[in-house]
Formats: sequence, structure tokens, C-alpha cells
Amino acid sequence: MRMVDLIHKKREGGELTDQELAFFVGGYSRGEIPDYQASAFLMAVFFQGMTRRETVTLTMEMAHSGELADLSTINGVKVDKHSTGGVGDKTTLICGPIAAAWGVKIAKMSGRGLGHTGGTVDKLESIPGFRVDLPREEFFSIVNRTGMALIGQSGNLCPADKKLYALRDVTGTVESLPLIASSIMSKKLAAGADAILLDVKMGSGAFLKSREEARLLAEEMVRIGRSVGKKTIALITDMDIPLGRKIGNALEVREACEVLCGKGEKRLSALCLELAANMIYLGKQAETLEEAREKAEQAVLSGRAFEKLCETVEAQGGDSAFLREPEKLSLSPVKRELLSPKTGWITGLNAEECGLAAMELGAGRETKESEIDFGAGISLLKTRGDFVKAGEPLALLYGGSGEQCRRGEERLLAALEFGPGQPEPALLILERIDEMKS
Amino acid sequence: MRMVDLIHKKREGGELTDQELAFFVGGYSRGEIPDYQASAFLMAVFFQGMTRRETVTLTMEMAHSGELADLSTINGVKVDKHSTGGVGDKTTLICGPIAAAWGVKIAKMSGRGLGHTGGTVDKLESIPGFRVDLPREEFFSIVNRTGMALIGQSGNLCPADKKLYALRDVTGTVESLPLIASSIMSKKLAAGADAILLDVKMGSGAFLKSREEARLLAEEMVRIGRSVGKKTIALITDMDIPLGRKIGNALEVREACEVLCGKGEKRLSALCLELAANMIYLGKQAETLEEAREKAEQAVLSGRAFEKLCETVEAQGGDSAFLREPEKLSLSPVKRELLSPKTGWITGLNAEECGLAAMELGAGRETKESEIDFGAGISLLKTRGDFVKAGEPLALLYGGSGEQCRRGEERLLAALEFGPGQPEPALLILERIDEMKS
Repeated sequence: MRMVDLIHKKREGGELTDQELAFFVGGYSRGEIPDYQASAFLMAVFFQGMTRRETVTLTMEMAHSGELADLSTINGVKVDKHSTGGVGDKTTLICGPIAAAWGVKIAKMSGRGLGHTGGTVDKLESIPGFRVDLPREEFFSIVNRTGMALIGQSGNLCPADKKLYALRDVTGTVESLPLIASSIMSKKLAAGADAILLDVKMGSGAFLKSREEARLLAEEMVRIGRSVGKKTIALITDMDIPLGRKIGNALEVREACEVLCGKGEKRLSALCLELAANMIYLGKQAETLEEAREKAEQAVLSGRAFEKLCETVEAQGGDSAFLREPEKLSLSPVKRELLSPKTGWITGLNAEECGLAAMELGAGRETKESEIDFGAGISLLKTRGDFVKAGEPLALLYGGSGEQCRRGEERLLAALEFGPGQPEPALLILERIDEMKS
Repeated sequence: MRMVDLIHKKREGGELTDQELAFFVGGYSRGEIPDYQASAFLMAVFFQGMTRRETVTLTMEMAHSGELADLSTINGVKVDKHSTGGVGDKTTLICGPIAAAWGVKIAKMSGRGLGHTGGTVDKLESIPGFRVDLPREEFFSIVNRTGMALIGQSGNLCPADKKLYALRDVTGTVESLPLIASSIMSKKLAAGADAILLDVKMGSGAFLKSREEARLLAEEMVRIGRSVGKKTIALITDMDIPLGRKIGNALEVREACEVLCGKGEKRLSALCLELAANMIYLGKQAETLEEAREKAEQAVLSGRAFEKLCETVEAQGGDSAFLREPEKLSLSPVKRELLSPKTGWITGLNAEECGLAAMELGAGRETKESEIDFGAGISLLKTRGDFVKAGEPLALLYGGSGEQCRRGEERLLAALEFGPGQPEPALLILERIDEMKS
């Protein structure tokens, strides 16, 4: 078998056999197929797509390119959750504990933030003492004991996907639906859970800008999950404006505590409850989604979900006193109030621009090597749908220096849109794709 | 400027600026842009194409990536000729001397054969003593003295094209019209002639299988030539069956001598005269193409063209006695007669298969490193349009061993098609594309 023949076949719109895809993934991860052939192949896939069978096979081959997590020593139904990435997305810190409070097992490997989107692991690290790199045995034993643990991604999880993703990033081949779907799902399969909840973001702050694209990706991933025997549900949710009122690692932990204590922003709380309900349902702790929704709400109202978060944080070495009094989580030294430049309705708040503003403040990473300032970020006082007067405070910015704050302010102003009338409220959960129904 | 942005732009169908193309070609040939980005870009070009301006700029950038031949010390109009490659194509050995006999200056750099297609340099090297690697000064002085010299391609001619072509070969990105056109034309521009005649082959033995493809490529190349101020004419000619009756290096020199002495096959002779006439016209040695055709014919009839070939061969160290008595050119030791397996009309003789048969005999190169047997090849006794009886000789095969002859015979039989009626004669020259008219 020769790689150049596989490139030709895909270029002409052909369908690769399972053997051919195994040859590609195996050969590439072993370094036998050079980058220049892999990138030409990926570009051909960008233009010609992949059939469903090809996408499933590619996913499985990438999942099997490294270690497969064996979660069999964890009792109960293990549910994983994945978000395609957004701004202010602290939902895992909220829906995880809610589902775990009902006995769903959450053994989650999370990523770090890159660019304008944040990562759960970074947010957790803003809690003093919290450890994200636990030995496998300790990780499992915490999940068995408390119902939930969150660690960073292991080095040997899907090495083929890691290598291919790095190549796609520099060869203009990221935006391909089968490549995105197989990259995400290979990691979820390798992570070993029994069921998967996908939160597919769309809008200005997500990499998917249209609902059609988001639906196609969600359907593709649900299909892959089903093909390999993992229950999978996807929600398509809005990421046109930031999620909640806080962006930045410590700030987002603060906001997660607010939601778990029943004092969170309505929109963010509603999304977290819906995500948690789907996890409870996937984790077989409710017969119907309706029942799962009631249980999710109860877990918050009773305080059990918040206690679950505290328990998990303690188990991983973190100090839960910072959760019980979240204002103790330290923020960056320079604080700036952004005042409204005009009077009117806020009709838009571009999520990507908000994420970039938080990055200017030091809350994100420009490259994988960048250092994060956990205390940096933005607390939004106003958002889309609010009426403001000129000079009224719009947001609080926290940064390491006046210069960072100045740049963050500039970016944040660029994110704002004003109009003469109150905008229609935007849908939060646009669609739910349930493999069990289709 | 970042290469990944250029890949994105092309992928989305954008038009690259001159600066961007210069960045790509320069960066790639200096090794600053890695192969994996170049191959992804080339695949994007395969799908999205290039505008005329882009193709011209790419051509110029590649031409300027190395040394540009300066032919200014050669008096008169320098005309170059290029064939896109075929089987049994010895036309340069014939039309070159015809045009040179009328004062057109031929300072030609030719390629070697690869795969089933032959190369002029290999054919010339089958003449004892002939040297293809002359110092630049000697090359120019021979052209000034005799009107013609033929050498191999200099190492530093279009290094960017050389590197890109090698990459395209292993990444499934050869078959792209703007890439093919710019690759050919960059070498022609770097070779420094004043005018260019292109022989674009189409049919089973050429890489272009359809007339539409051949026309598009020919037009594109003529357009590039015109854009950079070089008079360019293209002929689209048939390569469905081999050209002439002989395939193999020494055998083709023999056939070239036959044509120059007025004893060649009609079809081959007609093509050579037409090519030569266009060269005489491009070289301003005739006012009209009609006049040029008469002059071409005269040069053969008078024997002046044949003398010109002998003179050139002598000037480059070759022994012209082998041209005057071409049967002295030694052939491979094992000779085999292929007998017709059936009675009927020959309705097809697949040129590519014939070329592969000659390769089996030792006449061609499988890889750049393969050694050629100059004496190996095929002498066709029958061709398309002939009637044969079962057991009648179809061809003579010359090879280094019985096993090579056996394999060559098998291939040659596969090239043959028989039918119950005489086939329509195929057109030889399908189209002429003249920049001076368009």
C-alpha cells in the first residue's frame, strides 16, 4: 500500500477502506508516513469529505493509537461531557457536581484553554492546592469515593490525533467536519466513559458560526458514538455572547459557586441544569428527561451539588474554603471600571472579542507555552438586552498592569453593539440530538 | 506573512497577490516553508485552481528561483521547443536540424526519459562520443557556429520547480493545470530563448487523455508566454499510438536519420515538418507559415537538414559516421520477432503500453537512478490501420536477455487491438494555438 495512492483516491472522491485508513493512521503516528503526505491527504479530505464509515473508522483508529482508559474499576455508569469550546464556559464545574450528586460517575479528563477559549483544568487550578495530574489509581479511587474527579489529559491519549491536530493547525485543514468529529470523538472514546454528552457551541465565540454547521457536526458525533456502542446526546447551544457574567479562571470558579448556590445568572443556570439533566439521564439515574430535570434542580436547591463540588476539590488537594467564600479567590491587582460610551440598548456582545479581551488581561494563552494569570478577567455588569446610560459602568476588568487593562478595555469596547431598541432574547438551547431517538 | 494564511486563502478560493506567491516560492526554495505546508497548499490549488495572473506570477517566480540562461551572445532568433512527453517522440532530432538549416538558432536544454516516455538527451547519448554536458561557453559557441546544440538540463535551472515537482510527485498534486503549465513554462523562460514552440501531446501515451484538457493546457502556456513577452505557439498532437515505427534510444536515432533523408514514415515526417515550419516561422525565417512549410520541406529534400544534424553531432564530440550508416548503431543482443496472434485489422496500439514494453526491454528508466540500455527497444512492422494475418511478424524486439524480451512481448501484445474493419485514420495535428493571432 502506498500513501500517494490513498491521496489520489481521496482526491478523486473515493472512499477509503478500513485497511487503508488503518495504514494511514498507524503509518503516520509511527512516523513512517511523512507530514507532507498527511497534509496533502487532509486537504483532500477537506474538499472531498468522508463517508460515515470512513469517519467512524478514522475515529476508532485514532482512539486505538494510544492507551485506552479502562474505567472498569469505577462502579456505576460513567458519563463524559465535552464542550466544543466557548467564552465563559464554566458549565463542567456546575453540571458535573449536580450529576455526581445523583450517583452518576464523572471521571473526566479535561483540556487547557488556548486562544480566546478557556479550559476547565485552568479554572480548577485557580483554587489553591488543587492538583490536576493525579496518578491513574488515585483518580479512580476519588471517583469511586466522591463520584467525581477532574484531571488533565494524559500524554498518551490518542497520540495520532494529537500529531494530526498539530499538523492540521499549521496546514489550513482544521475546518473539516469529519476531521473535527473524529478528533473529538476519538478522545472521548479513549477516555473510556459509558456515555457521552456533547455541548456543541455555535455563534461568534465558537468555531462553528452557523446552526447548519453545528447540527451537521453534532449529528456526525452522535452517529459515531452510536456506531461504537456509546450512548451519545448532543445539545447545540448559543455562544454568540459569553456564557454567564464572568470570564477568567478565578472569576469563573466564583460564578460556578454562585450557580451551585442558586444565585447564578438565569441563562447560565438554565444551561447548566439542562446539561446536568442530560447527564443524569445518560447515567441512568432517571427514567425520563423530565424526571432528570427535576432531580437536577433539586440537587442545587438542596445544596447537595455544591457540597459535591467541595468534596471533589478537597479530594484533589484543593482548599474548599475558597469555594465557601469565593471572594477569597484572589484577583489580579489592577482593577478598571469600563464605563458605557453611550446611552442605549446593548444589542450585541461578541463572545470572541470578549475572550480576546480576557486574553489581553492575561487570562488566556496565546501559545501552548504562555503563562496564565488566574486572577485576570472580566466581570460583566451589563450584557445583551440591558439598557445603559452613557457613563454607567459596563464591566470590571482585572489585569496585571494598567497597560493590560487598557488593551482589554479597548477589545471589550469593540465587542459591544448598541441599538435604539431592546433586542429579541436569543435562544440558549437550540437543538437536542439524541441517538436513542434516531 | 504566514504560510498558513496563504493556504487558507487559496482553500477558500481566494486569489494570491504577487507578494504572497513570491513569499511562497522563495520561502519554499530556501527551506523556510516546510514541505507539509507546501503540499497542503498545492492540494488546495488542485481543487481551487489559479487565476491567469497567479499562474503567470508563479511561473516567473519559479523561473527566477535559479540561474536564468543568458543567450545574448548567440546571434539570431533563438527558438526553443518543448514536448509534453510521448512514446517514440524523436521529433527534436528532426525538426531542430531542419529549422537550424534555415538559420533559426537552437540552443536547447533537454530532459532525460522517465517512466514510459523517452528523453532527447538519452537518445543522443546512444551516438558514440556524443557529450551532453558541455560548459556554457562551448554550448553557446557551437550554436553560433553550427546553429544548433543540445545539452542536458543544468542543475540550477528552476530549483524551486524542481523541488516542488518532486513534492507534487509524492503528494498526488501533479494533475493540476496551472501547476503543470507553470512548471513547464518556468523552465522554458529560464532557458532564455526568444520564442517557444510547444508540442502538447494527447491520447493514451500522453499524460493528457482528453482534447479538452490538452487545449486548456496549451492555451494556458501560450498565454503565459505572451504575458512575459515570449512568442509562443502550441500544437496539440496525437499520442494515442506511438510516434513513428521505432521506440528505444538507438532505434529512434536511426529513425530520425531516415526521416531527415526523406525515407521516414509519412505520419512522423508530416509532424516533424509541421513542427519545423512553426520553428522557422517563430525564428522569423519566413513571413508566413505557408512559406515556412515549403522551406522545411526543401531542407529535407536538399539534404541540408541531415547535414546539419551531422554537423551538430560532430561539434558535440559524436561520430557522425553512425548517422550516415545508422545500422552501425548497435542494438541489444537478444532479438525476438513478435508474430500476430490473429488475422484482422489493427485498430489500436496503446502508446503507453508500447512505452512500458520498451521499458521492460531495458530502454527506459523506472526511477531516476535506473541505467538505460541504449540498444534496447521495439521496431514496429505494423501499426494501427494495417491488416495482418495470424503468424505474420508484427514487430522486432531488442533486449538484454530472453526474459526481458518475453516480458516486452507480453506488454506489446497487450497494447494491440484487433477489429474486423479498417479503422478511420486518426488526426495527427489536432489544433494550433498561436498567440500572435489571439
